[in-house]
Amino acid sequence: MAAQRSRPLTDPASLAALLEEARHTLPGVRLFTDAVDRESYRLDETAYLTAGLPGAVALPSSTDEVAGLLRLASRHRVVVVPRGAGTGLSGGAAGIEGALTIVLTRMDRILEIDRANLCVITQPGVINATLKGAVAAEGLFYAPDPASYETCSIGGNLATNAGGLCCVKYGQTRDSVLGLEVVLADGTVIRTGGRNLKDVAGYSLTHLFVGSQGTLGIITEATLRLRPAPGPRSTLLAFFDTLDAAGDAVAAMTAAGLVPVTLELMDRETVIAVEDWHHLGLDVTAAAMLMVESDAPGAAAAAELDAAEAACVAAAGRSIVRAADAREADWLRQARRLALRALERQGTVRMEDVGVPRARVPELLRAIERIAAAHGVRCATFGHAGDGNLHPNLIFDHDDPDAAELTHRVRDEIFRAALDLGGTVTAEHGIGAARREWLPVQRGEGAVAAMRAIKDALDPQGILNPDRVL
Amino acid sequence: MAAQRSRPLTDPASLAALLEEARHTLPGVRLFTDAVDRESYRLDETAYLTAGLPGAVALPSSTDEVAGLLRLASRHRVVVVPRGAGTGLSGGAAGIEGALTIVLTRMDRILEIDRANLCVITQPGVINATLKGAVAAEGLFYAPDPASYETCSIGGNLATNAGGLCCVKYGQTRDSVLGLEVVLADGTVIRTGGRNLKDVAGYSLTHLFVGSQGTLGIITEATLRLRPAPGPRSTLLAFFDTLDAAGDAVAAMTAAGLVPVTLELMDRETVIAVEDWHHLGLDVTAAAMLMVESDAPGAAAAAELDAAEAACVAAAGRSIVRAADAREADWLRQARRLALRALERQGTVRMEDVGVPRARVPELLRAIERIAAAHGVRCATFGHAGDGNLHPNLIFDHDDPDAAELTHRVRDEIFRAALDLGGTVTAEHGIGAARREWLPVQRGEGAVAAMRAIKDALDPQGILNPDRVL
Repeated sequence: MAAQRSRPLTDPASLAALLEEARHTLPGVRLFTDAVDRESYRLDETAYLTAGLPGAVALPSSTDEVAGLLRLASRHRVVVVPRGAGTGLSGGAAGIEGALTIVLTRMDRILEIDRANLCVITQPGVINATLKGAVAAEGLFYAPDPASYETCSIGGNLATNAGGLCCVKYGQTRDSVLGLEVVLADGTVIRTGGRNLKDVAGYSLTHLFVGSQGTLGIITEATLRLRPAPGPRSTLLAFFDTLDAAGDAVAAMTAAGLVPVTLELMDRETVIAVEDWHHLGLDVTAAAMLMVESDAPGAAAAAELDAAEAACVAAAGRSIVRAADAREADWLRQARRLALRALERQGTVRMEDVGVPRARVPELLRAIERIAAAHGVRCATFGHAGDGNLHPNLIFDHDDPDAAELTHRVRDEIFRAALDLGGTVTAEHGIGAARREWLPVQRGEGAVAAMRAIKDALDPQGILNPDRVL
Repeated sequence: MAAQRSRPLTDPASLAALLEEARHTLPGVRLFTDAVDRESYRLDETAYLTAGLPGAVALPSSTDEVAGLLRLASRHRVVVVPRGAGTGLSGGAAGIEGALTIVLTRMDRILEIDRANLCVITQPGVINATLKGAVAAEGLFYAPDPASYETCSIGGNLATNAGGLCCVKYGQTRDSVLGLEVVLADGTVIRTGGRNLKDVAGYSLTHLFVGSQGTLGIITEATLRLRPAPGPRSTLLAFFDTLDAAGDAVAAMTAAGLVPVTLELMDRETVIAVEDWHHLGLDVTAAAMLMVESDAPGAAAAAELDAAEAACVAAAGRSIVRAADAREADWLRQARRLALRALERQGTVRMEDVGVPRARVPELLRAIERIAAAHGVRCATFGHAGDGNLHPNLIFDHDDPDAAELTHRVRDEIFRAALDLGGTVTAEHGIGAARREWLPVQRGEGAVAAMRAIKDALDPQGILNPDRVL
């Protein structure tokens, strides 16, 4: 703990000395020191957080350069913020005033697609959709699909253990990671695994770094698991008069052993917002909509959706629509994909990310409705019903002076409600800077002390993304 | 590192003081101090290792008692060896001379089967088969199935991240863990997760403790993922004239996107040993046998085995047998289940546990044959071809005076061969005490230093299972 208490705040002279040395010894690193350039790296997508202006921004192009930068940062005691594409939703990659932000976007090469071993070796700056596309061209499939997959980077996905729509079948990012190359705070480069599916040699450092949000090291390479490309997706929408009925349908699918590739829920507010914008013909009188998709091979997809439809009907689902072909499926899928942007047309949106054991989704939905109503705040909820992860979105007028305070108050009550249901304050976005005070509430002081001990052991000077996560 | 260097060796007076205090303050803990009782806890199943005689053995019946014992051990600086059912294959739970072995077998209650959330909450002393049976009675399925499932405990499975036959479809033990309760070295009790499928609050302590072999804490409760019971297994055997042909069949199944529940290989030596004993009608002229099983629902199982059979035929597989019903499938499955015991009839068996990226299985098989032949040692290999994990078994006459030395020499060459193929020295058994010197060779000094830093942070006195893993 001593190391933590004496953590340095970067002083300008230290940063200047680091930059001077970097210019000479690491000529391949791109350095931004103009304020206008640095400003671009102040925020991530957690726009309502205040964030610091980086003192400098470094864009390395190799593991050696990352190692060189961290050696310098350790020597000069300069705080470092690792950053990918900046699409995070927890403030984990937002700037720290005067610190050095290290941006991995230039390390954007896919190094090898290994068909025989069904894995890909990639640098962290590759965009998720680019990776998906490259392996799809070989008939392969990289599963993790955060909503931001067209703009987020693999390194950020790894750092946050990003989720997405297909977690219910394929798990989070963690479940596709076989091994990492990581640069530690002192510049040491380690490897945590490789192409082996099974490997129990020593502690699982891979899993420790995944989701650690740049506080323990910088991921410079990853070996990721691939699958043969699944079948085209078949899609079903169903509408329900009550949240409980939608919950019953989800529970019935779970109990029947269905593993749809997506099992998404939108509440009435969200359905109305999408319908108002795009006129897809959604049933705006319903309390909730479910979207179910199957990517099972051949006839199994139709069988899976038949079973899903039966579960919806048994739970009094109505207005059930099934896509006749891939084009119609794309069109139905729009309903869910457009949800956030439809809400953002209506005002300033504060998206949260709570989760509960999946059978408790209806209770969480009711709690969210109750809390928002009690504060007179509009709230639209959508999310991943199949794995218990919901995104309540608080919607404010753009000029509402009370938005910030209300957000905080409503959010805290929703967090408490999720925890009372055995849930989590963050299912896929991360603690980052935005939810730090809730970590000990959820995990307990003892568990957080263990995390802190690990942090201090791997980063004794506390230079890596301080005051994030912990 | 300083903490490690000053690690205490238990002195008899410290242990006596601990026991005296435990008798008064922890009356529910069963204590064994007679030599004959302690002797039962000297070895695990890694019979060829020399192991120490525990100074005392404690059998707690609750988390509070485990916490009380670790508080005493910390205060008196007594080394502790956590132990489950003692079926480990790495010496991880073997005795340390004069230390306190804490045995979790009395904490053997299944606390809750949560059907709605598809999980079970269990104490660590429950036997794997007991847990499987209890959830099966509810129509549910706990996937991990180490070969010792009828005798190994869940706590040991967690501590070693145990594998088994169905990893190729369902992953290792790690992949079924949602959360743990763990007692740390100083007696602090923490929880690392719960019933949430997705939860990214803080570092993944769950994954750090899974596979850490009792060196970071003692697992006292686990929340484990269940699945609806799959269909009955359909089984296929196929025989090949060359190892490469068997490898080709496995590669073709992988490329076709098949996910059989088991995909096992036995080499000629193993087939002959089983056939000599049980006369199942196996083809003893073949170089290798594959066993493929499907637990896909309904007609999908037959379709999966049809595809597997086509892959075998395309790779010149012959003598292909498919079970007509569940009873015949059980009978075919015997061939694989009997492998180790069939070999043990022929002499002293030293089982190893190497893994490679799955496409390199034929290369590893050839390397194992070459190395064994060069040393004039009989070697029979079987294992999990679908995930690249092979068990070479060195077979010696019971009174062979060179067995120990030869084992070591052949083993080390096989380890080197596996690493040269990008593999691992242990895919599912663990580093434990048996493979420690290979950990830095495989992972690199930097990665091992990071593991050591974590160990020192969580167990600063080094009382938890010292000299295991690290």
